[in-house]
Amino acid sequence: MAASDFKVGLLGHGTVGAAFEALLAERAEEIERFNGLRPVICGILTRSRGDFEKILAEADLLVEVIGGVEPAREYLLQAMRAGRHVVTANKQLLSQHGEELFETARAHDVRIRFEAAVGGAVPVVRVLEESLSATPIDRIHGIVNGTSNYILTEMSKGSSYAEALAEAQRIGYAEADPSDDVTGRDAAAKMAILARLAFGAPVHLDEVRYEGIENLHGDDLQYARELDLGLKLVGTAERRQGGLSVHVFPTFLYPGHPLANVSGPFNAVTVESETITEITLSGPGAGGRQTASAVLGDVVSVMTGGAKPPAPPLAMALIEDVESAFYLHLDVADEPGVLATVTKVLGEQRVSIKSVVQRGMGEHARLVMVTHPVLESSLREAVERLGAFDFVRSAPRTIRVIEEEFL
Amino acid sequence: MAASDFKVGLLGHGTVGAAFEALLAERAEEIERFNGLRPVICGILTRSRGDFEKILAEADLLVEVIGGVEPAREYLLQAMRAGRHVVTANKQLLSQHGEELFETARAHDVRIRFEAAVGGAVPVVRVLEESLSATPIDRIHGIVNGTSNYILTEMSKGSSYAEALAEAQRIGYAEADPSDDVTGRDAAAKMAILARLAFGAPVHLDEVRYEGIENLHGDDLQYARELDLGLKLVGTAERRQGGLSVHVFPTFLYPGHPLANVSGPFNAVTVESETITEITLSGPGAGGRQTASAVLGDVVSVMTGGAKPPAPPLAMALIEDVESAFYLHLDVADEPGVLATVTKVLGEQRVSIKSVVQRGMGEHARLVMVTHPVLESSLREAVERLGAFDFVRSAPRTIRVIEEEFL
Repeated sequence: MAASDFKVGLLGHGTVGAAFEALLAERAEEIERFNGLRPVICGILTRSRGDFEKILAEADLLVEVIGGVEPAREYLLQAMRAGRHVVTANKQLLSQHGEELFETARAHDVRIRFEAAVGGAVPVVRVLEESLSATPIDRIHGIVNGTSNYILTEMSKGSSYAEALAEAQRIGYAEADPSDDVTGRDAAAKMAILARLAFGAPVHLDEVRYEGIENLHGDDLQYARELDLGLKLVGTAERRQGGLSVHVFPTFLYPGHPLANVSGPFNAVTVESETITEITLSGPGAGGRQTASAVLGDVVSVMTGGAKPPAPPLAMALIEDVESAFYLHLDVADEPGVLATVTKVLGEQRVSIKSVVQRGMGEHARLVMVTHPVLESSLREAVERLGAFDFVRSAPRTIRVIEEEFL
Repeated sequence: MAASDFKVGLLGHGTVGAAFEALLAERAEEIERFNGLRPVICGILTRSRGDFEKILAEADLLVEVIGGVEPAREYLLQAMRAGRHVVTANKQLLSQHGEELFETARAHDVRIRFEAAVGGAVPVVRVLEESLSATPIDRIHGIVNGTSNYILTEMSKGSSYAEALAEAQRIGYAEADPSDDVTGRDAAAKMAILARLAFGAPVHLDEVRYEGIENLHGDDLQYARELDLGLKLVGTAERRQGGLSVHVFPTFLYPGHPLANVSGPFNAVTVESETITEITLSGPGAGGRQTASAVLGDVVSVMTGGAKPPAPPLAMALIEDVESAFYLHLDVADEPGVLATVTKVLGEQRVSIKSVVQRGMGEHARLVMVTHPVLESSLREAVERLGAFDFVRSAPRTIRVIEEEFL
């Protein structure tokens, strides 16, 4: 290898690993022209071939695209302790062992880059780490799971959840076991990472409350249309009451919200700050080539000096009970006094109603309300009290609503 | 000053300069916590106070927010020759003397950063320079002038151009002399800069063809609604026929286009690449605090090692005559055979029609057509021939159309 070679050891050779190898070969010359160094792969480790120690000894940088916690964690720690830079696309690992990895990077003065862990080719990690490093951030909203956004888009056109999931699996947007995507766990891991970057506080995946899309009803999407709201799986990380709130929930969005029109397998992240109002980044979610492109961008970033690892974490309380507007759906008996009773109970829990749609259907009626912002605990109590009335025919359903602050 | 101070000389103290000074004071502690260095302002130069040589001698980095070509150019060159890093928000300067500045930065091994020159707080410069440095870019479309986007948004709601401009001036979105914004010249400067970053080829402001919004008719916006198209001032930089085409024109966008819903004084840039499909960045256009935030982000980037100046330029031919779909508006006498003659002339020039709206109004009729993509020169010839017919009552109007490639 030539003196101007920058040696990259590749751990993992699945979809992303193979796409990375191909893209690096395509782009090496252009990268060398720009940076004076040519990235070359000095070794590949898979389950069946390659020797980690040997690759480590030769490499300037290791790219980890194995996924999962072990052995990825051990490889990355060992590499950094040996003074090697690392690039990883591993959101599970970062959302569970991020602080250990960042601390190791700081202690050994090496870079750790992970653009591909969140948002596919959408450069949200770098924008938070670098462009906005001088900006105090108030809130991030993200559609960070392309699979569930695709399914919701199909459901909004009339498909059932099962049909939309099957179609997503057929065209390769969803895996055979889609649990991580549809339960919200994948999005929760990504929001933990974004929260760490935006607010400096360590957030473990286990600390992120999340709910997926697998229990949504076609009804919810139908009412969304009637109320002129879009339904998305939205991750939120925000400063609240001096602490930090991080969660992922199905959420209704007003049509003017920058995330409301993000359709299909796309990702988008909105960053709000008093200083800059808001910026939005959007693009295709993970795909082999998109992810590989983000990984290669990280490799180039390290070659050219790149950003330091995240600073030591700040202590910040995680707040669970935060205010939000809610959509509330009740199946009720169509009898006199029901609406009066419902509004009385809500009023007693300080839940104030912004809009209501009542629709009689034979002896049943449906009450669909959107509330003004209210503490979740207050809403939960109100819903529990309502659920105990005989005239409420099935469990009340609630979904968060993001209001049109920017209009 | 302490040893951990990073000394910033500030050239210019208008809206952006003052906002930068305030923001730096607010954020210095947080920046020091993260980076170990504290940015401090070591001197301010305005027309009436400060001494350039003295500020230069003390500073680690100069921030230039004077605007215009001279004396900004001379200050920046002198600073880089003295080994100082520079940050500038000056799009006029970069689009006319960019290569001289970049070459000086490379020769003296200093950083030159200019995020604030394009897109306000939207981090498009850094994304092109760094995140996408490993990605071959095919095309950029940008709404990069917030003033004209605000005016067009108001016109689409029914205001006349004059009313919308007056309102923009009243609320501070447009200057007393709005020429740079409404003629497209400001957007052209920004597209020259983005084209250089995306394609590596030097593009001088004088080489960018541009047309503004000041000659648009209310009619055009009304027909846009009928054809379900949005009307925006769009800058485009794209690889075409082995060369590069850079231009700014009022453009109709199909509703699915990522730029079609960008309203008010916002900026947005879409980057297309075979590798990543497309990503879109959007946010508020220039405002004092947004621009200051981008400048401070650049300062932090330099403090932490930041990206190198752009590599030496690539030679790439600038292509003027490119294919595009067009909207064509003809005022014609309402007499037999007109449509047949028009379509015959268009056919002879190989202009093929995608959709047509004909509307009779007394003895006049209006023909509004959208063509399939056609070389601009062919369309111009066809329009010239049509304009010569007696039945054409006023000069034909043409506007570019961006088609829905992503739907």
